[in-house]
Amino acid sequence: LIDGDIDEFREHFLSLHAYDQAQFYEKVGPDIRKTMYHFLSPAEMAEIYEAIELDDEEIEHFIKEMDPTYAAEMLSCMYTDDVVDVLNELDENDRDNFLELMDEETAEEISELLGYEKYTAGSLMTTEYVSIQENSTIRSAMNVLRKEAPNAETIYYIYVVDENHRLTGVLSLRELILADEDTLLRDIMNDRVVYVKLTDDQEDIAQIFKDYNFVAVPVVDDQQVLQGIITVDDIIDVIDEEASDDYSKLAGISDIDDIDASPLKAAKQRLPWLVMLLFLGMITATLMGQFEATLEKVALLALFIPLISGTSGNSGTQALAVVVRGIATGEIDEKSKLKMIFREMGTGLITGIACGLIVVGVVFLWKQSLMIGLLVGTAICCSIFVATIAGSFIPLLIHKLGIDPAVASGPFITTLNDITSILIYLGLATLLLGQI
Amino acid sequence: LIDGDIDEFREHFLSLHAYDQAQFYEKVGPDIRKTMYHFLSPAEMAEIYEAIELDDEEIEHFIKEMDPTYAAEMLSCMYTDDVVDVLNELDENDRDNFLELMDEETAEEISELLGYEKYTAGSLMTTEYVSIQENSTIRSAMNVLRKEAPNAETIYYIYVVDENHRLTGVLSLRELILADEDTLLRDIMNDRVVYVKLTDDQEDIAQIFKDYNFVAVPVVDDQQVLQGIITVDDIIDVIDEEASDDYSKLAGISDIDDIDASPLKAAKQRLPWLVMLLFLGMITATLMGQFEATLEKVALLALFIPLISGTSGNSGTQALAVVVRGIATGEIDEKSKLKMIFREMGTGLITGIACGLIVVGVVFLWKQSLMIGLLVGTAICCSIFVATIAGSFIPLLIHKLGIDPAVASGPFITTLNDITSILIYLGLATLLLGQI
Repeated sequence: LIDGDIDEFREHFLSLHAYDQAQFYEKVGPDIRKTMYHFLSPAEMAEIYEAIELDDEEIEHFIKEMDPTYAAEMLSCMYTDDVVDVLNELDENDRDNFLELMDEETAEEISELLGYEKYTAGSLMTTEYVSIQENSTIRSAMNVLRKEAPNAETIYYIYVVDENHRLTGVLSLRELILADEDTLLRDIMNDRVVYVKLTDDQEDIAQIFKDYNFVAVPVVDDQQVLQGIITVDDIIDVIDEEASDDYSKLAGISDIDDIDASPLKAAKQRLPWLVMLLFLGMITATLMGQFEATLEKVALLALFIPLISGTSGNSGTQALAVVVRGIATGEIDEKSKLKMIFREMGTGLITGIACGLIVVGVVFLWKQSLMIGLLVGTAICCSIFVATIAGSFIPLLIHKLGIDPAVASGPFITTLNDITSILIYLGLATLLLGQI
Repeated sequence: LIDGDIDEFREHFLSLHAYDQAQFYEKVGPDIRKTMYHFLSPAEMAEIYEAIELDDEEIEHFIKEMDPTYAAEMLSCMYTDDVVDVLNELDENDRDNFLELMDEETAEEISELLGYEKYTAGSLMTTEYVSIQENSTIRSAMNVLRKEAPNAETIYYIYVVDENHRLTGVLSLRELILADEDTLLRDIMNDRVVYVKLTDDQEDIAQIFKDYNFVAVPVVDDQQVLQGIITVDDIIDVIDEEASDDYSKLAGISDIDDIDASPLKAAKQRLPWLVMLLFLGMITATLMGQFEATLEKVALLALFIPLISGTSGNSGTQALAVVVRGIATGEIDEKSKLKMIFREMGTGLITGIACGLIVVGVVFLWKQSLMIGLLVGTAICCSIFVATIAGSFIPLLIHKLGIDPAVASGPFITTLNDITSILIYLGLATLLLGQI
């Protein structure tokens, strides 16, 4: 396909969208990739790297294939937020080497970005934005825009700043195009700018994008000085990541998106959870040991253990999911926490009684024993009630402690509810057995 | 706050971002809302309705508060995709009434949009885009753009069409601004346009946005005729919805985002799942009934039932989550399905053996019986193996049948795995008991 004609390759390849170029680049072997480094300029390669789907190990491997000067030049051509993503995959030595090879100003900017904490606005933002002094005219603003357009990550918002580079307003390109050329920016800009701070968490920033439908949002420091912008494409990745993260935690698994992992690697990702839960499960077994005498007398009791623990697990997971999701979307806040717990208590009571009644009926019909029916029904009712409260209370408590409530994963809550439901069931049974 | 001065209210209120206006509008009582209908023009109200967070019942209620002519005029001022969202919340009669009150052309456009199936490109798109003939010059394109800008939902992409309105190219506003005024669009447009078809599924469209980092994507019919555009803000909602949907199904709950539901309503949403799983759990109890004799002889066996069923449920949920997520992101396709199942078999084997060995050790130390240790360990090992395969195979099978694999929810798989794991355990125990 490629060997030979540079011109033909360039004509075909460069007419592709950067994402498709990246897909090609990722799929071919090292020989073809090396030819590509010869055929394409660092600037052209930079576009591929901006579009590439990052996979930690591959990125490092690919970058090391390149001639270091070529790689450094490519990095200089990329948007700073993407450079930061790439450099974060390399070890510190390589990172410093590349920074030294880049021109001083860019290197300095990037070191600064590398310094921001992960998952904050600082680590997501790019410094390629268009900012214009507030006392410029529209005409001069359009000229600045034309000059900056090839380098800026987005030109659809123009950020208006004062002489100290403090953010004072914003203007969309649409408004700019429609405005009279002699107007001052100051007079038509929107001065209620929605912005985020350098240290804001990425989840909160995602919420702002969802609410306001922005294409980009400015980032300022404590002095209101404009530091960078965050664009919607990066936020889509954040939303995706966070959803994936909540989802995988609900399932009790650490790295859900690693579809290509080998069986051994996949097992390694799942075993910590499984083993932890196994030991929690041992506690259940130990506690049940206290009731061995009861179980010995009425072996029938054992038949309903999976039913009871399963049902309590299910209702606990439901409550958990609602609360974790509610915290993640910001719908549950300090004020509504208490209300939430009362709501869940009510819900647990209703579902518990409903399920309990069904079970009393079914078990009575099946085993022809009202006693067993009532016992199992009561146990299910109480277990659901307790499990629902636990499922909602525990993530709220964890959140209160400043920890991501999603760590209270489904399997964890389920195993915990196993313990309580079985204690309730066998405790009740032992009490009743005294009565028989 | 409001009563009285129109001018003061308008000055304050209109300087707010539309989202904040919407927040205010949603929170105030009916009296203040009615004052707002007097103080604000339908066009100003339209902006609020474009930014509003839709809640089905409220929207219907609010719209009915308005004077029908006011409401119809407001709807005419909104972007068509948002009108469709609002009208979808009303019953058919009201919908037709409003369409009759609107001007004919708009009404026709909207009826057409209402006709597209839910979750397809047709139902998501808006018809307010900028399209320009391919043999226009940049100068005349800029003029068209200035004229259309106030009405178009986005002006950041200009779609280039031929004389039959077939999509032939695309140009970003950035490229337009930088181009020489006398060039023809045809000569500088990108003619490899990424587009979607009217009937494409919203999940696939979301994937395109994630891959290509677009702000908008064009929608064409079978003849390649441009029909509308989909903007990134609507896709963010889709991504959010789909993630929420997968998440809630994993937890076995239908409407997870209804945080404000009353306990009764919340219980109604959860009970169908709980009761269905309850009956599945009854099957477990019935099957265990076959082993009552075994349980009677060795009551000790019952202690490990929750441990074994819990562990198998956990490993099944892990496998399920990986596969469901993989299908949702498109990472698992026809070709990789078989590979996936083999991977999961390997993973199940490794995790099974690892957990089995741990259990043999712990149970042996605790109960001082190698026999019981081996029995429980083997049962755990086999259960994990089977559960992992079931957790990956069942969603793949369901997907093959054309059903959303997420319906194979966590609790469902867990309850199913309860049955198999207990059968394995008690089956093994009964066999061994014959040997003792």
